[in-house]
Amino acid sequence: MNLYYLGPKGTFSYLAAKQYSLEKEVIYSHCPQQNLYDVVKSVAENDDAIGIVPLENSIEGTINIIADSLIQQDVYAHGEIYVNIDFGLYANEGAQIEDITKVYSIAPAISQTIQYIHKHQFAYDYVDSTIQGLERISFTEAAIAPLGSGELYGFTPIDSHIQDYSLNITRFLVIKNHANFDKDGDNTILLISPKANKAGLLAKILNTFALFDINLSWIESRPMKQELGFYYFFVQTTTGKTKELDNVISILNNLNFKVKIIGVFNAYS
Amino acid sequence: MNLYYLGPKGTFSYLAAKQYSLEKEVIYSHCPQQNLYDVVKSVAENDDAIGIVPLENSIEGTINIIADSLIQQDVYAHGEIYVNIDFGLYANEGAQIEDITKVYSIAPAISQTIQYIHKHQFAYDYVDSTIQGLERISFTEAAIAPLGSGELYGFTPIDSHIQDYSLNITRFLVIKNHANFDKDGDNTILLISPKANKAGLLAKILNTFALFDINLSWIESRPMKQELGFYYFFVQTTTGKTKELDNVISILNNLNFKVKIIGVFNAYS
Amino acid sequence: MNLYYLGPKGTFSYLAAKQYSLEKEVIYSHCPQQNLYDVVKSVAENDDAIGIVPLENSIEGTINIIADSLIQQDVYAHGEIYVNIDFGLYANEGAQIEDITKVYSIAPAISQTIQYIHKHQFAYDYVDSTIQGLERISFTEAAIAPLGSGELYGFTPIDSHIQDYSLNITRFLVIKNHANFDKDGDNTILLISPKANKAGLLAKILNTFALFDINLSWIESRPMKQELGFYYFFVQTTTGKTKELDNVISILNNLNFKVKIIGVFNAYS
Amino acid sequence: MNLYYLGPKGTFSYLAAKQYSLEKEVIYSHCPQQNLYDVVKSVAENDDAIGIVPLENSIEGTINIIADSLIQQDVYAHGEIYVNIDFGLYANEGAQIEDITKVYSIAPAISQTIQYIHKHQFAYDYVDSTIQGLERISFTEAAIAPLGSGELYGFTPIDSHIQDYSLNITRFLVIKNHANFDKDGDNTILLISPKANKAGLLAKILNTFALFDINLSWIESRPMKQELGFYYFFVQTTTGKTKELDNVISILNNLNFKVKIIGVFNAYS
Repeated sequence: MNLYYLGPKGTFSYLAAKQYSLEKEVIYSHCPQQNLYDVVKSVAENDDAIGIVPLENSIEGTINIIADSLIQQDVYAHGEIYVNIDFGLYANEGAQIEDITKVYSIAPAISQTIQYIHKHQFAYDYVDSTIQGLERISFTEAAIAPLGSGELYGFTPIDSHIQDYSLNITRFLVIKNHANFDKDGDNTILLISPKANKAGLLAKILNTFALFDINLSWIESRPMKQELGFYYFFVQTTTGKTKELDNVISILNNLNFKVKIIGVFNAYS
Repeated sequence: MNLYYLGPKGTFSYLAAKQYSLEKEVIYSHCPQQNLYDVVKSVAENDDAIGIVPLENSIEGTINIIADSLIQQDVYAHGEIYVNIDFGLYANEGAQIEDITKVYSIAPAISQTIQYIHKHQFAYDYVDSTIQGLERISFTEAAIAPLGSGELYGFTPIDSHIQDYSLNITRFLVIKNHANFDKDGDNTILLISPKANKAGLLAKILNTFALFDINLSWIESRPMKQELGFYYFFVQTTTGKTKELDNVISILNNLNFKVKIIGVFNAYS
Repeated sequence: MNLYYLGPKGTFSYLAAKQYSLEKEVIYSHCPQQNLYDVVKSVAENDDAIGIVPLENSIEGTINIIADSLIQQDVYAHGEIYVNIDFGLYANEGAQIEDITKVYSIAPAISQTIQYIHKHQFAYDYVDSTIQGLERISFTEAAIAPLGSGELYGFTPIDSHIQDYSLNITRFLVIKNHANFDKDGDNTILLISPKANKAGLLAKILNTFALFDINLSWIESRPMKQELGFYYFFVQTTTGKTKELDNVISILNNLNFKVKIIGVFNAYS
Repeated sequence: MNLYYLGPKGTFSYLAAKQYSLEKEVIYSHCPQQNLYDVVKSVAENDDAIGIVPLENSIEGTINIIADSLIQQDVYAHGEIYVNIDFGLYANEGAQIEDITKVYSIAPAISQTIQYIHKHQFAYDYVDSTIQGLERISFTEAAIAPLGSGELYGFTPIDSHIQDYSLNITRFLVIKNHANFDKDGDNTILLISPKANKAGLLAKILNTFALFDINLSWIESRPMKQELGFYYFFVQTTTGKTKELDNVISILNNLNFKVKIIGVFNAYS
């Protein structure tokens, strides 16, 4: 079975994929991709593919490209993985922090170390992947990369745990191109699409869940890309596909929402 | 008075700033900045500064760096501006689309033309600004930039209206480092910060507004960066700072939320 | 067709029944009954019977015996009638108010003139019907009866409009022993019976109607007679049997309520 | 101290008053009154008076005259008492049920034994008090009275536990003409008066309590006696006068309700 993730070796996605393999005690063919779009597309197009994609980070919030992929592509969630996010500053051997004038990294890494970057008055530039950043290392240029990843390419961190917020966790989804709703699952992700725009839609959604005493652990909106102020809503319930959830879905249908079950699975623990 | 925005000339922020100047019939000293972080910081630190920052795009959703700035910096909203987003493909004179193999642009522009990019099988890379993209134009490389902006630098679009979604609008905020809540304002942006994490916080917030029949036009959550699943909430009401809104704020305080008024102003029309 | 009501001639029920006959332009066989229980029972047992029963008075509130009958008997509402309630003090010819020491009337009439009774320091006693009260008239004893009713038996009011609250209206229901839900009806009465007792049942009911934007003009609870604090709920909607109402009923069923449609009809105007 | 209740000896109110004296281990001067109106009025006018009044019966529901008294008179609840309601049929010695053709009792007692009365095809008539009923006992006429009460007057029940519903409980309030809100109380009765009539008032009230997670054990409406469909609301919370309750009251004030605290006390157990 093919395992797709945002590569190359050393990304947090790679670390999440490795963690997933270990838990499942299965050896997968690794298929690192150049961008998240390609990860989702590969999974959508291959029946024997598994994807590991970041849905939410405790600092950055929802990863929009993944949320939008769940809307646009025919993929389903089969589980979730939590990974601690720690960054290091990778440079040439012997380099001192004072020598560095510019850093390279992918956008989320820049964003999550921006205070560190500003404190050291580094210039910065975006690259598409961790390895591209490492490749740009020179005497005055460094790369910000997941702690532990630079070593895979022969670099040493000259500073570590440099993220702005010490507690930094990313929640990854395990996706496939077909649904398999776990009967014993204790978590459900739903995509709720209003058919018409009017005031109070989100309140109606939340009140419907409240009516059946179903708690929500994640609520996110994404633009419908038709007009400003018209949104899709994602919710994650702390309940599986129970009779109560079926009732909620049926009510939401009657309230003029389309509801797609993205996944029913056991919460990561 | 200094007008800060994400520069250089030709960005949508620049276009929004120009639109703002025209409406106010005031000539401002233009202070284009290299990134949004610097725009907000400059405004926060200067009493006679005005900033024009993108809050929400009809395709991309909320611009997280701006939402987070409203949380972290002491800036206030004094108005909003809507700008239509149209992209063009800028290249060397005489170039044909078939000649192009790679495009450069800033991340949001890449994101909003990604289907176009994939359709033409372009490689792509991120740059920090529109002008940086234009500077990389070569025989086989093009830049994606706001329609009308490339011309300022002597380039011609070889394709136009290339965004994936034809209807594409960005809502900008006008920010200053001090509050001046418009008594006749018909819109209020609030930042609502829970003091403790528990289930149903957003429902409580929405129900409090519903109690006083106040409609919300924008609801957004941003991570508190302390733990996964603990969020700040932004809401925008379609009402000014009325007695009812004061009541809502007082209730939210009693329900253990901190509430900051980000701005009271007239909705853009 | 037989028309049942609380008799004899001269009661407000009689006046309501007369009003109903006039509106329908039908001559019914009048079947006055001695008490409300017998009115409902007669209707329940006869297919060609119509009953006119008081559901709610603007001073007294809901008439419990009728609400309980709607729960216990198989009767349905086919319409409603509003009657102004005015009372007179009927006595022997030539009597002065100062001569009177005691008054007789039915319980609701006593209740609605109690301040008048106390002001004149009358003793009072209950009778089963208006006519029983009139029969007890003596030199020092008077009867409180609907204005206009005593004349039918040869008495004259020595005081009139003596009810404590000048604006006094009773809403009567038209009942039959079979349902005929008016397709064009704009009002629905529902009886909602919880299958289990727990906190917040009424809030759940009201929120379900609110979800579908259905307004309620009447909400009443009646004890289930099994334990203290366990109630049936009546609601009257300002909507007919629409798709939305069907949805509400289906949700209430799923929330473990039994729902009986008591009637769909046009509101009295 | 004077203890007021609906007399004479033998009524359930008397039994409740006796129960109250025993619990308090205080000997009160008994002041039985002829009707409930006089009980409340006596308490309202005397600073050293205590009243014991029935608020709610598990079969009959709320006792309207008491609910209305709490609205109209300046009395406050200081506690509650629960009394089991059992009725007996009192007749002349040696009488058989078959001999009886008519029964006398107060209206609530008739109501709560109406099926028994109908089963035996008794005629019935209302009296103002238990003792009045007992006084009418003749060879063919009997009295329905609280079990144990007739014996006080020398009568024997020829049938017992004759109420229609075997589980029959009345909740009495202990009232005084001044408030003394028990700091350790775990129950609060509130009277909530809308200042203007519009749709959804009760939902707003219930949602306000829900916002602060306060449960309600009793919800009752009583007509405002101004127009049909305009109600006072009583609620009883399962919480004392906490900070949360103060918040709820303040919100209800802002939502244009007047709120009077009728009492804070410990629930009867």
